[in-house]
Amino acid sequence: MSQLLWQKPGVKVDARIQQFLAGEDVILDREFFVFDIEASRAHAEGLAAIGILDDDELDALRRELTALAEDFRAGRFVLDEQYEDGHSAIEARLVDRLGDTGKKIHTGRSRNDQVLVATRLWLRDRLECVAEVSREVAEVALARAEAERSVPLPGYTHLQRAVVSSLGMWWAAWAEGFIDNAWRATQTRDWLDANPLGSAAGYGVNLPLDRDHTTAALGFGRMQLSATYAQLSRGKFEMAAIEALSSALLDLRRLAWDLSLFTSAEYGFVELPSQYTTGSSIMPNKRNPDVIELMRASYSAAAAARTEIEQLLSLPSGYHRDLQFSKGAIFHAFGRGLAALELLPDLLRNLEWRQDRMQAALEPSMYATDLAVDMARQGLPFREAYRQAADPQRWAQGDPHHSLQARVSPGAAADLRLEVLHKRLQALAAA
Amino acid sequence: MSQLLWQKPGVKVDARIQQFLAGEDVILDREFFVFDIEASRAHAEGLAAIGILDDDELDALRRELTALAEDFRAGRFVLDEQYEDGHSAIEARLVDRLGDTGKKIHTGRSRNDQVLVATRLWLRDRLECVAEVSREVAEVALARAEAERSVPLPGYTHLQRAVVSSLGMWWAAWAEGFIDNAWRATQTRDWLDANPLGSAAGYGVNLPLDRDHTTAALGFGRMQLSATYAQLSRGKFEMAAIEALSSALLDLRRLAWDLSLFTSAEYGFVELPSQYTTGSSIMPNKRNPDVIELMRASYSAAAAARTEIEQLLSLPSGYHRDLQFSKGAIFHAFGRGLAALELLPDLLRNLEWRQDRMQAALEPSMYATDLAVDMARQGLPFREAYRQAADPQRWAQGDPHHSLQARVSPGAAADLRLEVLHKRLQALAAA
Amino acid sequence: MSQLLWQKPGVKVDARIQQFLAGEDVILDREFFVFDIEASRAHAEGLAAIGILDDDELDALRRELTALAEDFRAGRFVLDEQYEDGHSAIEARLVDRLGDTGKKIHTGRSRNDQVLVATRLWLRDRLECVAEVSREVAEVALARAEAERSVPLPGYTHLQRAVVSSLGMWWAAWAEGFIDNAWRATQTRDWLDANPLGSAAGYGVNLPLDRDHTTAALGFGRMQLSATYAQLSRGKFEMAAIEALSSALLDLRRLAWDLSLFTSAEYGFVELPSQYTTGSSIMPNKRNPDVIELMRASYSAAAAARTEIEQLLSLPSGYHRDLQFSKGAIFHAFGRGLAALELLPDLLRNLEWRQDRMQAALEPSMYATDLAVDMARQGLPFREAYRQAADPQRWAQGDPHHSLQARVSPGAAADLRLEVLHKRLQALAAA
Amino acid sequence: MSQLLWQKPGVKVDARIQQFLAGEDVILDREFFVFDIEASRAHAEGLAAIGILDDDELDALRRELTALAEDFRAGRFVLDEQYEDGHSAIEARLVDRLGDTGKKIHTGRSRNDQVLVATRLWLRDRLECVAEVSREVAEVALARAEAERSVPLPGYTHLQRAVVSSLGMWWAAWAEGFIDNAWRATQTRDWLDANPLGSAAGYGVNLPLDRDHTTAALGFGRMQLSATYAQLSRGKFEMAAIEALSSALLDLRRLAWDLSLFTSAEYGFVELPSQYTTGSSIMPNKRNPDVIELMRASYSAAAAARTEIEQLLSLPSGYHRDLQFSKGAIFHAFGRGLAALELLPDLLRNLEWRQDRMQAALEPSMYATDLAVDMARQGLPFREAYRQAADPQRWAQGDPHHSLQARVSPGAAADLRLEVLHKRLQALAAA
Repeated sequence: MSQLLWQKPGVKVDARIQQFLAGEDVILDREFFVFDIEASRAHAEGLAAIGILDDDELDALRRELTALAEDFRAGRFVLDEQYEDGHSAIEARLVDRLGDTGKKIHTGRSRNDQVLVATRLWLRDRLECVAEVSREVAEVALARAEAERSVPLPGYTHLQRAVVSSLGMWWAAWAEGFIDNAWRATQTRDWLDANPLGSAAGYGVNLPLDRDHTTAALGFGRMQLSATYAQLSRGKFEMAAIEALSSALLDLRRLAWDLSLFTSAEYGFVELPSQYTTGSSIMPNKRNPDVIELMRASYSAAAAARTEIEQLLSLPSGYHRDLQFSKGAIFHAFGRGLAALELLPDLLRNLEWRQDRMQAALEPSMYATDLAVDMARQGLPFREAYRQAADPQRWAQGDPHHSLQARVSPGAAADLRLEVLHKRLQALAAA
Repeated sequence: MSQLLWQKPGVKVDARIQQFLAGEDVILDREFFVFDIEASRAHAEGLAAIGILDDDELDALRRELTALAEDFRAGRFVLDEQYEDGHSAIEARLVDRLGDTGKKIHTGRSRNDQVLVATRLWLRDRLECVAEVSREVAEVALARAEAERSVPLPGYTHLQRAVVSSLGMWWAAWAEGFIDNAWRATQTRDWLDANPLGSAAGYGVNLPLDRDHTTAALGFGRMQLSATYAQLSRGKFEMAAIEALSSALLDLRRLAWDLSLFTSAEYGFVELPSQYTTGSSIMPNKRNPDVIELMRASYSAAAAARTEIEQLLSLPSGYHRDLQFSKGAIFHAFGRGLAALELLPDLLRNLEWRQDRMQAALEPSMYATDLAVDMARQGLPFREAYRQAADPQRWAQGDPHHSLQARVSPGAAADLRLEVLHKRLQALAAA
Repeated sequence: MSQLLWQKPGVKVDARIQQFLAGEDVILDREFFVFDIEASRAHAEGLAAIGILDDDELDALRRELTALAEDFRAGRFVLDEQYEDGHSAIEARLVDRLGDTGKKIHTGRSRNDQVLVATRLWLRDRLECVAEVSREVAEVALARAEAERSVPLPGYTHLQRAVVSSLGMWWAAWAEGFIDNAWRATQTRDWLDANPLGSAAGYGVNLPLDRDHTTAALGFGRMQLSATYAQLSRGKFEMAAIEALSSALLDLRRLAWDLSLFTSAEYGFVELPSQYTTGSSIMPNKRNPDVIELMRASYSAAAAARTEIEQLLSLPSGYHRDLQFSKGAIFHAFGRGLAALELLPDLLRNLEWRQDRMQAALEPSMYATDLAVDMARQGLPFREAYRQAADPQRWAQGDPHHSLQARVSPGAAADLRLEVLHKRLQALAAA
Repeated sequence: MSQLLWQKPGVKVDARIQQFLAGEDVILDREFFVFDIEASRAHAEGLAAIGILDDDELDALRRELTALAEDFRAGRFVLDEQYEDGHSAIEARLVDRLGDTGKKIHTGRSRNDQVLVATRLWLRDRLECVAEVSREVAEVALARAEAERSVPLPGYTHLQRAVVSSLGMWWAAWAEGFIDNAWRATQTRDWLDANPLGSAAGYGVNLPLDRDHTTAALGFGRMQLSATYAQLSRGKFEMAAIEALSSALLDLRRLAWDLSLFTSAEYGFVELPSQYTTGSSIMPNKRNPDVIELMRASYSAAAAARTEIEQLLSLPSGYHRDLQFSKGAIFHAFGRGLAALELLPDLLRNLEWRQDRMQAALEPSMYATDLAVDMARQGLPFREAYRQAADPQRWAQGDPHHSLQARVSPGAAADLRLEVLHKRLQALAAA
């Protein structure tokens, strides 16, 4: 049973109820623990700055917080059910090691702003991961767009063969997409980069806390000024972070769909390195692209997390315990989402195209649009040109127009302006 | 690294990819494990019935499966990352103990139908829990409706005081709601009570499997005839089960909202036993109704699970690895949902009403509707009666009408027909 | 500006606010209008039974309600913004035509139970449509399963060619799925078939309303006894109805995915009648399977509606105006969902298979599972048989096993037990 | 029946299918129509720049497009079911008025990029509305925070009275929240401000389209370079826009919850101007805060829209008809969401506080936290101070500490730094 630092004496405790209240909370707090320690250190420094702690006390607290973080990372300190949550664990450890000095750490703060600041630091970190991996995906895609720009690829709409496209166009699409995703993550990171520490339980505290110090010490872009808004942003900021993650996962889902089709026998455009496939327990003949399917499926974790949080947010202002459930949700979303994204750059690097299959899938009539546009260019109203180009007989034997084409249609061969994407990517990396 | 029974030689394995593929799968399978063993036993019996196993082999398999279940329950067998999943663990154990006989257990089945049947048994079990706890809630509510039927309670619409209601009406509402919830769980249990074992990977198998035997042995209401549909029902059946759970959780959410208000200082209608409250880490004066808030919040887990699964189900027929993610989702929904529901009967039994506060919240004008209806009853067109009853002056000093009233208005005192609810409840319990 | 029958004098009205309050409400009420009239008639009869109306008044009200329904159906009465909502429109018309008698119609009822009963009748009707169209789909699928049972079709898992399946298996899957869907709709219809009329604003009314009469007159299976629960079921019952609809739409989504692939050039298994395709505005060579894509997309409307409603349901008991938004949501879900489902039977009847393409997609190694099972049947432990059957060389030239096969593998040819599905379908139709 | 400009002859048309395909599409396109015309004009200019149109043709097209927009705004041109969609309507009108010149408008574009560009312009416009109304809300809140900064207000956590807060803190919270919301809308506007026109059906076109011109003419911040990505951003960009809207609506939901409680008889903190309330059809005594409830409920439309779109986005790259359903979703979200937000500034301006009720809700023990912090400030370890301050006897009669307090606790009276919020707001307005 956990140590309940603020439990009042004489209160009956029912084990099932305690279990329900605790849930998996303390286990989840492992994700936050180093951020919680980091914020505790900044808080201690702030308390010293306003005279609540003397220099010795501050030194002692800093030393023990550093030791706790090291012990935690090394596995010497295990955060488990003996603690109510990570916040209590930090305080308990400090009290255990430092006695009265430890009992001072919670002066002027509440678990409410403690979890807010740890969450904020964690989200900021994860959004940076999303931005970084998105930039890496974009780099790979740009490089391959450059290298394979003129390789023809059937272009589909409605899963029907439409016009001739190119690997250049295909790769450039993902490059531009993931540049946008990196930008979205960065925007969102900036948007939520505000320090809630010092807001206590949502109504501030009667101490002249040095919030400027903690804001600077934790590297925040700004202070979250209103204590009441700090509470109101619980869940709201998580939603924005999940949306930024989702932006990348939405693209990953569609990319995985392409690869799922391209690796089928019917398309056969892509050869998947064997480490991305698995066998079947009953069918000896199978190699399955499970990695791609789990990548595609990873969006669902982000969607679930968002649903889970938004269902909690129909509440008056102020803290409510409902909000505790937002914690597991973000771990689920970013845990699964980042795991999928982080495999993507290598997967894209290692894809092998089967150009024979791609070539074989090009049909003469896929040049009909090019032909119609050509005729329009020469003065025929487009609707007339369209009608003439639609004649199936023209395409039955192959068309003179087709024989004049390069292997890639003029449309697909158009300037991809990859250098502009390069510049956007560099600017993001520099930001 | 897990034992990959169907891994082909010469395939490069990348640890990060393996980690991504495995995820938390084997840990999740702990939930299914005893059901998986139970289905394996039925499968072995079916294989014996068609001559694939002889009597000695069947006896050996039965014995080892029983032993495995016992070892698992006793903690002597731990299902962890050394196995790819629970299915492999069972097969590995049988091969380890029984050699060639163990290697026969997977004849005519696939992990695909193995996970389907384990999921089905698990869902059936959980829906029975939902039905049972819903009936228990209804029983408590009915008993208290009976006992407190004439205690007046303000009736609200739009959170505005509206008419005089009663504790009888309030309790009867939850009784009827949870009877419906129990029924929904039972309906849904029956709906999905179909045996998928024998459908292999979705296309059957060239063995005359004794599916009638496994259907009977596992207590299924019917056989899922089509192997392809067995696969198509993955996720679909989970969605229905979650919906049945959600039905109860939707009511719990609204009930918890009532209690959240009723336990506030402003309402003060309900005294919560101390074990349902917690303290604050910073505010010495607080007792917070956290249990009620987490009950209210539990709906979000079910909503999240449903979102997570339905995002996976935009797929052609046949198995896809995406569907693996449906597993964690149902554990999350039922884990959190049932934990909340199971605390409810005791909470309701232990609620104490503060009738002085409830009485004080009744205002004379809350009889205006009763008065208007009375006038209508005596022949005044209702719209006229409404206009007359709306006159604020009539209610300023209290109204003669009011003084004529029993403490509960005639509307609220109306026959609650609790005996009909009793009968419905008994019929459900007997079903 | 609508007629606000219960607007108090002297209240300032702001047009923008009125517009916000009214929304599209009255337009939406067109869906409910005939049900609202039907329930009004039953209510009037109930009032007569307890002496609130005399025989002449009842006759007059019945006559005018019948006339109103006829005028509405014929377009002579238009429900539009001149009314606040459908409920007010009925009352206004009756007052207009019958004076004081009309003013009596609202005796003992509230718009709260009026909208509840109209919604209930509407949902019941729509669920019957879902059940009916699901049965029709199942019938078509069963008939084609029978007729085409032995036509081989590649069976896929992970979109990879797996084993040989058959059209019989494919059709039987949808047959069984839609039988389940019809059953789910019927279960849900029964579950929500409870009369809320007489619950007034959620706290009953001080009149001995003849609820048994209205329950019988409107054909309800039971009475919703608790007035407070009648309010609590707003949204909850809508959610259940949407889930039943969604069950069918989930299957439709997967069926449409199959057809979307099968009609692609790469698969080419299905020829779609021309009326199910459309042209492109720019590409003369295109015929696009838009109907199939919109069918696939229709699930999203149901998911959206469910999200919309569940977001509203985090509320204390009692009516809140938030609940008004549940109305548009169910119209959206059932409107789009039923439109898609109703096109399905014809589409399935008219599908033409290209057996040459299906045959060409069968590869020898798709018999590897059958071979392994055969070897296991002859005594080789399955894991050994699996290893031997996995040898690619065995399948390089075609396998002797393959040549022994009928065109459909033994697994796929297994007894589909279609007669059991027939019986289930008949039982549902009779219910 | 609509004019199908690209319908091929000889294709059977089935009315029900046509109805299903068309849906409400053309009606929805009314929202987009002026943007579609604006983009058509830019496209025509681009065609002239590359010699596809001569000066006379361009003049004629410009003139007719201007006339069409005017006719549409004036109601002289009605976009209805006689057209397949808005795009066709524009082309049909130009052909009707200009013959062959009209037939040239569609040269080098597809309905695919046409709907993309119209959607983009529409979303940009709506996000600007969200930003603007959010800034206005923040302004009102800031002004009232300033004016009422020292008025004490009970501060709640878990709906339990916690510490003494102030109107200053309450208003400042919404000010900071809506500044963030305005910023989010602006970030998102910038993020999606990319020109898709010229991407045709997702694969470009064999014309040297002057995309720089259309980008500049339509005021886009950048060009969406990849034609394939232009298609991939369908839905993805809508999701981001909805998230930005949702950010404001999440805050509105919580604000409405506060007001819903504050206007109840139990709290009684707020008097709502009469135009924000409505009467009851059955209860003469009621005034209901419907406007506040519908504001609270408006989040659900955004959530529904997001669900609707994301369900569509599990697709391979390229256009699919499924995506059409994203259109109605954004209209629903922004229609309802902006309607609610736009009423908010006036509502906030007109709120009247009942300070007597607020004062009466302050209890002595709400100063316990202040006391504990004071003691900690004087050197007592906080956990000790907490224990001493928790003694109920201390607060039973009022506490000496309490009498020393200003009417607002030191915590709540802390510097709100409103000037920083003012600056952020000005910077946003200037951006």
